[in-house]
Amino acid sequence: MASLQDLKARRREDYPYILDYRTRWNDNDMYDHMNNSVYNFLFDSVVNDYLMKHCNLHPPTSEEHPLAAHLHTDFFSSIAYPAVAELGLRVNKLGRSSVTYEIGLFEQGSPDIKAVGEFVHVWVQRATQKPAPTGMSDGLRKGLEKIYRGPGSPLSSSSPPGSKL
Amino acid sequence: MASLQDLKARRREDYPYILDYRTRWNDNDMYDHMNNSVYNFLFDSVVNDYLMKHCNLHPPTSEEHPLAAHLHTDFFSSIAYPAVAELGLRVNKLGRSSVTYEIGLFEQGSPDIKAVGEFVHVWVQRATQKPAPTGMSDGLRKGLEKIYRGPGSPLSSSSPPGSKL
Amino acid sequence: MASLQDLKARRREDYPYILDYRTRWNDNDMYDHMNNSVYNFLFDSVVNDYLMKHCNLHPPTSEEHPLAAHLHTDFFSSIAYPAVAELGLRVNKLGRSSVTYEIGLFEQGSPDIKAVGEFVHVWVQRATQKPAPTGMSDGLRKGLEKIYRGPGSPLSSSSPPGSKL
Amino acid sequence: MASLQDLKARRREDYPYILDYRTRWNDNDMYDHMNNSVYNFLFDSVVNDYLMKHCNLHPPTSEEHPLAAHLHTDFFSSIAYPAVAELGLRVNKLGRSSVTYEIGLFEQGSPDIKAVGEFVHVWVQRATQKPAPTGMSDGLRKGLEKIYRGPGSPLSSSSPPGSKL
Repeated sequence: MASLQDLKARRREDYPYILDYRTRWNDNDMYDHMNNSVYNFLFDSVVNDYLMKHCNLHPPTSEEHPLAAHLHTDFFSSIAYPAVAELGLRVNKLGRSSVTYEIGLFEQGSPDIKAVGEFVHVWVQRATQKPAPTGMSDGLRKGLEKIYRGPGSPLSSSSPPGSKL
Repeated sequence: MASLQDLKARRREDYPYILDYRTRWNDNDMYDHMNNSVYNFLFDSVVNDYLMKHCNLHPPTSEEHPLAAHLHTDFFSSIAYPAVAELGLRVNKLGRSSVTYEIGLFEQGSPDIKAVGEFVHVWVQRATQKPAPTGMSDGLRKGLEKIYRGPGSPLSSSSPPGSKL
Repeated sequence: MASLQDLKARRREDYPYILDYRTRWNDNDMYDHMNNSVYNFLFDSVVNDYLMKHCNLHPPTSEEHPLAAHLHTDFFSSIAYPAVAELGLRVNKLGRSSVTYEIGLFEQGSPDIKAVGEFVHVWVQRATQKPAPTGMSDGLRKGLEKIYRGPGSPLSSSSPPGSKL
Repeated sequence: MASLQDLKARRREDYPYILDYRTRWNDNDMYDHMNNSVYNFLFDSVVNDYLMKHCNLHPPTSEEHPLAAHLHTDFFSSIAYPAVAELGLRVNKLGRSSVTYEIGLFEQGSPDIKAVGEFVHVWVQRATQKPAPTGMSDGLRKGLEKIYRGPGSPLSSSSPPGSKL
């Protein structure tokens, strides 16, 4: 797992998939900034957008679907409605049936990362709600590999200098 | 009030202020489309965005602020995550202390309006929670007049032919 | 449709089905009261609770399901986190394929109604997304009739004195 | 930090403060269970309820207020609308200006814990958005100490046998 120092230094280019989400009035809480809980809605949104557009996930019918197993988030500074948030996505770990996404939250027009989360999905068969004996499907795995930036990735931001393709 | 037929015929050019809002994973409910309640979050969001950027509203401190008095929405067809919604805003009535907004919801890439709502704000003084004797401030009124498209507006879409400026 | 005066006079006993919903931190917006959009989440929640528990609705699989067609809400006074809301439900109109619910929002410990909404569902077949030629199912209709308090209902709060069962 | 095994074994009596929250229709996502993001809304809600009722926090005006610094959640099994959730709260760490809450989520009528989270608040002065040189106020600290169940607490569930008062 990356150190807090590493995470604070993340930049947009560390995330191969980025979407902008305009914040909503009620995202702000009484302290006039986006409530911490709302970050996770955005994390979940960029993850599922990628899964539906690049991994053939069709939530109402797909034979395999994800269950959330773990989530952690570090908040560095705040963002407030009506700003536009930019959500960056990468995959940090890819197991037999599980995947660990990392999501970075930026604000349009501002260089520094505001928050970063890791989110673990376990892929289960719809019929059994258990992982398939053969793990996640090949189609899904291929989609996730495209944004893999974890250990061993030639594109990993934590790779030693000179190791980039 | 416009007829349901008129409302279904609304187009983006009937709204002088438009913002796009990317839908979020949890906006969808069990029927795989955006839940009706979420429309109002988006309505509220485009309204407050305009108020903050063009009417000097600063929610934590402004001496006057709005209270919701009435809301109605007609739903014509559905929109579903991960689509991008486009929210159009106009003012249909402008009273001494109250304003009636109309908001139209479109989907990026699709011509027809999906839903239209009217939303009534009563402007109150923060200190008393009652309307000011002199009504809303001039600055606010001027901001709202810029997007007025109700009766008598030369730009109103319901004006008779030939009445446009 | 009931007059605004009638609606403001609604009491808990005008609603045959009542559930309490504890408000959540982020229900409050910058004005330190529950955001108007959140009311509709609660309306939708008490409606679907009744449908699932008393009308055999099983959202993932039922052959018929509802689409929201219209919603209007009048806001009389505010409620704020961490209060407990009480949501009362009745049916005001029951058509061949559509139903108009009325929902009243109260605050635990306070007699006066805070807001009242009417919400129209059109029941469609899952396969076609159109109403069935024979309208809603008998089981559903019977469930809805139990909380019918519209014109002609012997239990209607707008019935003349002496007409109660 | 407690092991995952310890967390899965948590029971209601490990939490000195418990509130019930009825789930809402739109808490469920396309997989017919409460979306993982909604857990954090509930965590935040039970935390702030305690702060307002037992630690004198008044969000619109208090001189000190919390900022979320870190959050992690482990999800063990699911809960679905229309169930009633029960949220248990305890304090696991109490620093000079920071506090680590633990929140357990149960379902009414079911013994096993569904999810557990830890949530870190840093208390800042409203004027500076920085911690006070003297740390959090005494009133706040006293309120938090009442539900402290971390290392050294005679009531801690991870205390060795025989150490209970």
